[in-house]
Amino acid sequence: MKIEVTQEKLSKALNLVSRIATGKVTLPVLNNVLIRVDNKKVTFTTTNLDMAVVDYLPVSSSSDGVVTVPARLLAEFVSNLPKGENITISAKDTKITISAGKYSSTINGTLADDFPELPEINEKEAVVFKMGVDEFKTGINQVIIASSNDLTRPALTGVYFNTINNELAVAATDGYRLAEKILVDKVESEVAAIVPTNSLQEVMRSLGEDVEEIEISFSEDLVRFRMGEVEIISKLIDGSFPEYRKLFPADNDIEVELPKDELTRVAKLAALFSREVGGSIICETKKPGSFSVKSVANEFGENDSEIETEVNTEGKVNLNSRFLLDALNALEENKIIFTFASKISPILIKNKKSKKYTHIIMPLNS
Amino acid sequence: MKIEVTQEKLSKALNLVSRIATGKVTLPVLNNVLIRVDNKKVTFTTTNLDMAVVDYLPVSSSSDGVVTVPARLLAEFVSNLPKGENITISAKDTKITISAGKYSSTINGTLADDFPELPEINEKEAVVFKMGVDEFKTGINQVIIASSNDLTRPALTGVYFNTINNELAVAATDGYRLAEKILVDKVESEVAAIVPTNSLQEVMRSLGEDVEEIEISFSEDLVRFRMGEVEIISKLIDGSFPEYRKLFPADNDIEVELPKDELTRVAKLAALFSREVGGSIICETKKPGSFSVKSVANEFGENDSEIETEVNTEGKVNLNSRFLLDALNALEENKIIFTFASKISPILIKNKKSKKYTHIIMPLNS
Repeated sequence: MKIEVTQEKLSKALNLVSRIATGKVTLPVLNNVLIRVDNKKVTFTTTNLDMAVVDYLPVSSSSDGVVTVPARLLAEFVSNLPKGENITISAKDTKITISAGKYSSTINGTLADDFPELPEINEKEAVVFKMGVDEFKTGINQVIIASSNDLTRPALTGVYFNTINNELAVAATDGYRLAEKILVDKVESEVAAIVPTNSLQEVMRSLGEDVEEIEISFSEDLVRFRMGEVEIISKLIDGSFPEYRKLFPADNDIEVELPKDELTRVAKLAALFSREVGGSIICETKKPGSFSVKSVANEFGENDSEIETEVNTEGKVNLNSRFLLDALNALEENKIIFTFASKISPILIKNKKSKKYTHIIMPLNS
Repeated sequence: MKIEVTQEKLSKALNLVSRIATGKVTLPVLNNVLIRVDNKKVTFTTTNLDMAVVDYLPVSSSSDGVVTVPARLLAEFVSNLPKGENITISAKDTKITISAGKYSSTINGTLADDFPELPEINEKEAVVFKMGVDEFKTGINQVIIASSNDLTRPALTGVYFNTINNELAVAATDGYRLAEKILVDKVESEVAAIVPTNSLQEVMRSLGEDVEEIEISFSEDLVRFRMGEVEIISKLIDGSFPEYRKLFPADNDIEVELPKDELTRVAKLAALFSREVGGSIICETKKPGSFSVKSVANEFGENDSEIETEVNTEGKVNLNSRFLLDALNALEENKIIFTFASKISPILIKNKKSKKYTHIIMPLNS
C-alpha cells in the first residue's frame, strides 16, 4: 500500500476522522484509523461502534492495500510536518512508514481484519433529503440545545427528524423545554427517526467551509450524512419521541412583543441573583405597557428591570433564566414574541416574522 | 457612601479584583470586595489571605464610607450593564444599590469590620526595584515554567528574586530543570525572596496594556507589586531557595548551535512517540555534522530526525521532551546553543547572543 498526498489534505482528513477514535480499552483497535487504498481511491475510516466517520481523499498517486494504525498518533505526526511538503505513506505488513522531505517515521499498526465491520445504508430503501449546509447548521443549533443528557430517557438524548404536512422538521426536548425547526419546506418522502445528539455534533464539527450541500439518508436503524468528501454513518436511537406538537400551547392569552437584545440583558441581570433559587426568575406584564423581569428576593439581594411594550392582559410567570437565555440566543430576529397564559401552560417564544422556529418552556411553580 | 463612575472603568476594576475572591466556605467574607471611599479616593480590595489585590479608581463624584459586598455578583452585574452608562453605587448600612439608567439592583453586603486586616509594606525598610512591564513579563514567563507544584517543597513553588553581582535575577526550579533570567542590569539594593507562583500569575494577569512600569517592593515577609492603579501585596514563601548557580554546568564539552524552529519541530515529532516512555527522547551529536533527535523504539513505532550543524564532539543524552519544548519556547532568539557533557551533567540551553537567560535540564538515565 502506498499513498502520495500533500500535508494539508492529509492533515485535514486525519484530524477529522481521528476525533472519534477515542480508545475504548476493551477494543483497542477503535483507537485506529483504517486506511484503505482501492483502485486509486483512498478512504480513512474510524468508528466508535455507534457511528463511523469516513473521509475520501483524492491522492496524486497510490497503490492498493489496507492497514490500521493509531489515529491520533498519525494525525498529530502529520500535523507537525511542514505545510506544503509532499507526504508518502507506505505500508509493509502492519508497519507504515511516513516520509516527508527529511522527516521519516515508522508507526506500528494492526491487521485490518481486526477492524469492526461498518454498517451500510441500504441504498434502495433509503429515504433521502438534501439541503443547504447553512440552513442545516442553523436549524440543528436551534434545537440541539433543548435535547437531554439523561441516559435513562434515551429517546430524549437525540434530535427527532420527522415529516409533517410535507415539511421536514427537527425537534428536541429534555422534558422542561422543547424546540422545533422546519428544516425543509416541501418534501415528498416521509421519515420519523431520532438521531443521537453526539452523532449530530460530530456532523456539525465535520462541516467544512467549502461544503455547500448536505445529503441525509435514513434506512431502517441507520442515518448517513454525506457532505463533500466526508460521510458520517450513525445508528438511530431506538425509542419513540413524544408527540410534541400536542404540547404547543393553543390558548396562551398573554402575548407581548419584545426586543431580543434588551430582554437578553435584563434576563442576564436577573439570572445573577437567581442562582440560589434554582435559576428561577419572574416575568410579568403590567398595564398600561411594561414587561418586567425580576429575581426572587434572596440573601444576595434583588433585581427588577422593565421593558416598555404593549400589554393586552396582565399576568405573571416564573421560569428558569437559563432556559430563557438559551431560547433567546436561538432566535434569529431582534423582534420576538413571548406568550404565556393566565392558567398553567407552556411559555411559547418565537420570532416575530418567521414561523419556522418554535421554542416552548415549562413554567416553574411560583 | 456613594460613587459615580462609568461602566467601563468600574467593570474593569471589579473584574480585576474579583478574580481572587474565591469563596473559602470557612470565611465567607473572602468572597467579598471591600469598597472604601475616603476623601474622593475609592479603593476596591479583595484578599485570599495569602495576597490582596487593591484597585484605586478615579471617580467623578463620591461621598465617604466603607462596605463589603459579594465581589463576583457585583462584577458580573456591572459587566452586563450597557457600555457607556454612568453608574451610581450608594450604600445604606450593609445594602448597596447600583443604578444605571433604567437598571437598578440591590445587593446585600456585610459590615466592613468583618473584612480581614490587610498586611502593609513597611515603606521605610522596603527594598524597591522598578522596571519596564515588557521586560518583567518576558522574564517571569521565561522562568515561571520551571517552578514546581509540589507543595511538600514550598520553596520550589515560587520564583526566587535575588541580586547577584549588582544584577536582579529571577529563578525557578522544580528539581528537574531550572531557569534563570537577569531582570535588571544595575541595581544597588539587595534582595533574596521567594514570591509565590500564584501571586505572580495574578500580577501577570493584572498588567493592563496601558501600564509601562512596574514597581516591586520587598519588606520582611511581604512583596508589593505596583502597576498603574493596581497594587498586589503578597506574602513571601518562608524557605531557602537552592544555591542554584552552583548547578550551572561548567564543563559541558559538547556544544552545538541549532535553529530553534527546526529543533522545536523535530522535538515535537519525537515527543509523539515518547508518551509511553515518560516523554524520554534521545539527542545525539554525530560527526561530521549532524544533531539527531529520536524517540526510543516502542510499541507505537519510532521516529528519527536530523539537523545539520557543526559538531565538535560526539555524544548522546536522554531528556524529557516536554522540558526541552518548554525551554525552546522560552528562548527569544532563533539561533540557540545546546550544550551537554560526555559524563552525566545538566544540559544547558541558551540564546546564541543574549546571555541573560539560562535554562538547564537534568538528563534522564538512558
